Amino acid sequence: MTLKDPGFGEILAAAERIAAHVHRTPIATCATLDRLTGTRLYFKCEHLQKVGAFKARGATNAVFSLSDAEAGGGVATHSSGNHAAALSRAAALRGIPAHIVMPSSAPPVKRAAVAGYGASITECQPTLEARETTLAEVVAQTGATFIHPYDNSRVIAGQGTAALELIADIPALEIIMAPVGGGGLLSGTAIATSGLRPELSIWGAEPAGADDAFRSLRDGTLYPSVNPNTIADGLLTSLSERTFRIIRELTDGIVTAEEETIIRAMRLLWERAKLLIEPSAAVPLAAILDHPDHFSGRTIGIILSGGNVNLDCLPW
Amino acid sequence: MTLKDPGFGEILAAAERIAAHVHRTPIATCATLDRLTGTRLYFKCEHLQKVGAFKARGATNAVFSLSDAEAGGGVATHSSGNHAAALSRAAALRGIPAHIVMPSSAPPVKRAAVAGYGASITECQPTLEARETTLAEVVAQTGATFIHPYDNSRVIAGQGTAALELIADIPALEIIMAPVGGGGLLSGTAIATSGLRPELSIWGAEPAGADDAFRSLRDGTLYPSVNPNTIADGLLTSLSERTFRIIRELTDGIVTAEEETIIRAMRLLWERAKLLIEPSAAVPLAAILDHPDHFSGRTIGIILSGGNVNLDCLPW
Repeated sequence: MTLKDPGFGEILAAAERIAAHVHRTPIATCATLDRLTGTRLYFKCEHLQKVGAFKARGATNAVFSLSDAEAGGGVATHSSGNHAAALSRAAALRGIPAHIVMPSSAPPVKRAAVAGYGASITECQPTLEARETTLAEVVAQTGATFIHPYDNSRVIAGQGTAALELIADIPALEIIMAPVGGGGLLSGTAIATSGLRPELSIWGAEPAGADDAFRSLRDGTLYPSVNPNTIADGLLTSLSERTFRIIRELTDGIVTAEEETIIRAMRLLWERAKLLIEPSAAVPLAAILDHPDHFSGRTIGIILSGGNVNLDCLPW
Repeated sequence: MTLKDPGFGEILAAAERIAAHVHRTPIATCATLDRLTGTRLYFKCEHLQKVGAFKARGATNAVFSLSDAEAGGGVATHSSGNHAAALSRAAALRGIPAHIVMPSSAPPVKRAAVAGYGASITECQPTLEARETTLAEVVAQTGATFIHPYDNSRVIAGQGTAALELIADIPALEIIMAPVGGGGLLSGTAIATSGLRPELSIWGAEPAGADDAFRSLRDGTLYPSVNPNTIADGLLTSLSERTFRIIRELTDGIVTAEEETIIRAMRLLWERAKLLIEPSAAVPLAAILDHPDHFSGRTIGIILSGGNVNLDCLPW
């Protein structure tokens, strides 16, 4: 596995590699939300992607980039959910084993999705340390290739293909936004956007209750995510050295969203735009609602990251 | 207003007339639902249509078909919700008044949508008789043109444009399905399908708790909908002579769905396909789940009629 950051060429290659295995997702608009925010919003519907999240892109690119020798041992990862489902599906498509280390706190709907793709699941405590220790054991036992959820050049290249499609479909875009957790989606989005339309502004959106990326960029120091507290359960993780470097170099910055605004934005996207997205996907709209002066009058593409929600436990 | 049934030519004309005012909605697929039903399903996403329902098509076609003299008096209707919002929006686009008679039982989210388009609302008791009496009073007072929710040639022609797009996008279709309440969507779907691909089978889907169309077709007699009992609140109304005649002549029949299957189908569409549809839109999938032998192995296009749901009152 290369340690080199992916370039624009790797994103174009990823788009070709995964085209037969993932959806080219539609782009939605909503006149009510445009009026409410004073912007023109274009939503890239990755909640309609395979496995219900953009993670299908990166995982598929990583699995189908492996040599036959590498692929033989299967793949392994630790993940709170969407990456695990995406990697399990990609491994099943290639006909190789997938070994998933999952925190005991993972939502049941995400656990069921992984099991449905035939992956073997190893449970661990819900800490980063426990995940990494358990993962190392699984890799040692099986010989599987570790596919990190975001600190992986091929995963990042795959995630960038969503922005590639969004920018190609909507030439009028001035700003592109993606939520930031570990930074894989935002890194891929930044590389794709810089390659295709370098004049566009690129902003990450992060919950105020898990603002490690915001603080890291502000201070020029990589802070880990400590005791994050947000409903956006896809955005609890820390940046890696790699995603921190890419985001620092290529994006315009991070904007944060308050918790109550994230819930309001999620409900607006459900009720007015009929887009069934998970809380993490509502964070960019929430950041726009919390920083109206920053975005007023602009044409903005937003990557709706996923739609895997526990329907028995909605925040309203 | 012509009493003649619309032909295929009127549907093509409607498609051209409304193109600038409505979305060409995307088509979604879901591998999990295909596996579960043993079919290949293509979902026409009219919940992503303007006003969150296919009704935008028929109402827009009717309003923009009016002569300037007719339009001057505005338009009026009675509706439990989606047609009212659609007519209000179309009238606002043309810059003419809309007068809406609404039953006091209409869901708050639908009432709010109508008010948001600037229509004037007159409340009435939740019976067909009260609706018609109140509507006659409003028309007499204002000189507005009554645009019936489904017993209207131009409305039916507009609704047929959804099937036109679905069939054009998915050449492999063998069957097309739409839910049936008053029969406007199913009539338009049947006319469009018969004109474009006469070899396709056309089925309506109806709640078993509101199966007046099923019984009417079975017995060759138009039965009114008496005390319907279903969560599918868009399908409570009766066929008209016109929609009964069209459906009898052009469709293969009606299949019914049990109430618990409608709720299960709605949840499956939310949880697995991430499609935020209202209960009425879940009825075709529910009918497939309740009649597996009838549909097994087939390639089926389903018109998801709308997505206007009260999020504070979900059926699980």
